[in-house]
Amino acid sequence: MRGLKAVPKALFITFEGGEGVGKTTNIEYFKRLMADACLDYVATREPGGTPLAEEIRNLLLAPRDEKVCSNAELLLMFAARAQHLSQFIEPSLQRGEHVVCDRFTDATYAYQGYGRELGVEAISVLENLVHGNRQPDLTVILDAPVEVGMARARARGDLDRFEQENLSFFERVREGYLLRASQNPDRYAVVDASLSLDKVQNQVKQVFEDRVLRVISQAGEAS
Amino acid sequence: MRGLKAVPKALFITFEGGEGVGKTTNIEYFKRLMADACLDYVATREPGGTPLAEEIRNLLLAPRDEKVCSNAELLLMFAARAQHLSQFIEPSLQRGEHVVCDRFTDATYAYQGYGRELGVEAISVLENLVHGNRQPDLTVILDAPVEVGMARARARGDLDRFEQENLSFFERVREGYLLRASQNPDRYAVVDASLSLDKVQNQVKQVFEDRVLRVISQAGEAS
Repeated sequence: MRGLKAVPKALFITFEGGEGVGKTTNIEYFKRLMADACLDYVATREPGGTPLAEEIRNLLLAPRDEKVCSNAELLLMFAARAQHLSQFIEPSLQRGEHVVCDRFTDATYAYQGYGRELGVEAISVLENLVHGNRQPDLTVILDAPVEVGMARARARGDLDRFEQENLSFFERVREGYLLRASQNPDRYAVVDASLSLDKVQNQVKQVFEDRVLRVISQAGEAS
Repeated sequence: MRGLKAVPKALFITFEGGEGVGKTTNIEYFKRLMADACLDYVATREPGGTPLAEEIRNLLLAPRDEKVCSNAELLLMFAARAQHLSQFIEPSLQRGEHVVCDRFTDATYAYQGYGRELGVEAISVLENLVHGNRQPDLTVILDAPVEVGMARARARGDLDRFEQENLSFFERVREGYLLRASQNPDRYAVVDASLSLDKVQNQVKQVFEDRVLRVISQAGEAS
C-alpha cells in the first residue's frame, strides 16, 4: 500500500512449561532479545493482565475453606482470559506491538485437562467461545523431566508445590504439553530445559532467530 | 421401599422478573407459604449463594473504569452459578430440602441474551456445561408492562436503574422471559404482577398450591 504505512503483523508469543523448568528466567532472557532487536513488545501473564483479570487471579489463588468445583475454576480462568484478550492482548497486537505472555490456554489444557484429568472437552468449548480466531503465533514449551524440575524446585526451597500434588500429576502435565506440541509443530517450539542455563538460552535464542526475527523480516519483505 | 425412609424429591424453584415487578416482596410471601405448610426449604439468590460466588458477585457489581467484555461477564456469571449449583443447590436438594432461588439462568437469557442482544448461543453453551441435567422444576415469572415497573421504581425513588438503560432494553428483557415461558409452559408459571399486591399474592398462592403442594403430595402418594 503506497502512501499508507501498514502496521506490521505483530506476533502473539506464549511461554509454557511445568514447575522448575526456568520459565521466569527464560522469559526475561527472551524479552532482552526482543529489546536488543528493537522490537516493540509488551509482556503479560495469565491468569491476569488487566485489573479485573488480576482480581479474578486473586480469587483463584486465595486459600479458602470452600471447595471450588472444577467448572467454577475453569470458568473463572476463561473469564480472566476473555478480559485479558479483549482489553489487553488484542489492542496491543492491533497497535503492532508483539505480545509475550507467561502461560495461556495451553496451561489450562496441561494442568486442568491432563494433570487433573478433567478431560479437554469443556476446555475446548470455552476456548472456542473465548478465543474466536485468535491463537498464539508461537508457543515456546520449556520441557524437562519431572525429576529435574523437582530437584531445581528443591534447591530453591520451593518444594511445597511438588509435595502437594503427586509426581504422576506433573508427569501428566508434561505429557499434555508434549502431546499438544506434537499435534501442531508449526506453532510450538519445544526447548530442552534440562540442560545448563547457557545451553537452554542458546536454544531460546535459536527459536527467537528462526521463529520471530525471520518471520518478521519475511513479512517486511512481502509487504 | 420398606424399611428405608426414602428422601422425597425436593423441588428447585426460581423466581424471575424485570425491575419493579415486586420480586422481593413476593419471594418473601412464597417463603411464608412454604413455612406455613411445614416444608423444609432453603432460600438463596443469584449471582451468589456461596462465599466464592458472592465474591464473584462483588466483582460483577463493582463499579470500575475498565470496560468488562461481554464474554468475561457471562463467564463470571456462570462461574458463580457452577459453584452455587455444586456447593449449595445440589447438596440441599439431595438432603430433601426445597430450594427457592431469586433469579437463575433465565435471568442471564433475559438480560444478557435478549436485553443486551448478545444472542443466546454462548449462554446455551455455558448452560449445557454448568447445569448438567439440572433445571428448575418451577420458574415463577412476575410479569408486568415496563411502564408499570417503572412507575413503581419511581415511587420508591429507585429510578436510576431505568434511566441507565433505555426503555427498549427492558421491553426486550420482558419479551425474553415471556418467550422462554411460552416455549416450556410445564416449567414456567407467569404471574400478572401489574395488579394490586393482594391480587398478585392470590396468584402466587395458586401457583404454590397447584405447582408445589399438589406435586409434593402426588409424589408422596406414588412412593
